[in-house]
Amino acid sequence: MKFYNFPGAPSPRRVRIFLAEKGASVETVSVDMRAREQLSPAFRARNPRCTLPVLELDDGSFLFETVAICQYLENVFPEPNLMGRDPKEMAQVLMWNRLIEADGFDAVAEALRNSVPGLAGRALTGPREHAQIPELVERGRLRAGDLFAELDRQLADREFLLGDRLLLPDITALVVVDFAARAKIRAPEQLGNLSRWHAAMSARPSAAA
Amino acid sequence: MKFYNFPGAPSPRRVRIFLAEKGASVETVSVDMRAREQLSPAFRARNPRCTLPVLELDDGSFLFETVAICQYLENVFPEPNLMGRDPKEMAQVLMWNRLIEADGFDAVAEALRNSVPGLAGRALTGPREHAQIPELVERGRLRAGDLFAELDRQLADREFLLGDRLLLPDITALVVVDFAARAKIRAPEQLGNLSRWHAAMSARPSAAA
Repeated sequence: MKFYNFPGAPSPRRVRIFLAEKGASVETVSVDMRAREQLSPAFRARNPRCTLPVLELDDGSFLFETVAICQYLENVFPEPNLMGRDPKEMAQVLMWNRLIEADGFDAVAEALRNSVPGLAGRALTGPREHAQIPELVERGRLRAGDLFAELDRQLADREFLLGDRLLLPDITALVVVDFAARAKIRAPEQLGNLSRWHAAMSARPSAAA
Repeated sequence: MKFYNFPGAPSPRRVRIFLAEKGASVETVSVDMRAREQLSPAFRARNPRCTLPVLELDDGSFLFETVAICQYLENVFPEPNLMGRDPKEMAQVLMWNRLIEADGFDAVAEALRNSVPGLAGRALTGPREHAQIPELVERGRLRAGDLFAELDRQLADREFLLGDRLLLPDITALVVVDFAARAKIRAPEQLGNLSRWHAAMSARPSAAA
């Protein structure tokens, strides 16, 4: 296996933390997103969507959606379990992961990509240029704020989002909270449960992976 | 289990087709989205996001993301397998399902929700009102068109999207192609592989579920 990574990007960080929590390591290839190497013909042959992370399997095929890469790694490195041990927990992992991607990750990306001058024409990832739409900035901020409040409620009586152990949605949420801070969207301090959880997640060695 | 359904909506149709391909049936409760029953306090107590489908489990908990509901049903009704038999296929199912949701389902929803007068203030699902953004209409159409071309390439040497048997991404893609037609986004007829696959998918009894 080969993991195509860029240290500064949020989505590959999800895979790095996932691997670190497994205590697993995979051969890693760096792709320089600052130089837009993900748009190069060589990279496009691996992933026509020009996004990271990408996982190259030993048979030469490629996986390029974070949840799919995590599912593969979960099967290769089953312990500690990060994607659920029974049908209900497996489903809850996919549900929360998707909710946090949609209302958190996508919302923050919308706020950032439609406002940063250096991303003009790059309002969406991928090979096609898309113009920035300023109305999406405030909408993205609102959506991320709604998600933070929901995560805070979910964490009121739980150590982690789904109970007493860390699962994939915790990793996705940690990356979203930190990604949001880069877009100057900060979880309000009065969300005490979220703050407590974020401090605990950030103190784990995997957070620096 | 109870499945909360509305016949006219595309996302619950994914679950109906999934169940029909399994030859399984589940107690079904109808939610009248035309009367906006999904925004009622009673429904919001089940799913605070006010979306369908929802699956109520026998312990009284709720699942409300399509991929999560399908994962649960896959474990309860394992045959025929619709979400992959080995680590690579399981990952490919999640990858293609997500790509088709993002570039197809979300793109068509964007084109529709930002243009239909009756959906003013409903540019996104959920309890919060979001104004329509007209620029998203053409962008959604472009994105859906790009996805259709990609599906056509993927189907060039395959009966179904991932090979010789139907899997969840085929169901998601069928629903997207039909949903797009409602938004007057039609897959061009010169996409012959996609047309052949769509005709075959539409002829299956599950398509009418």
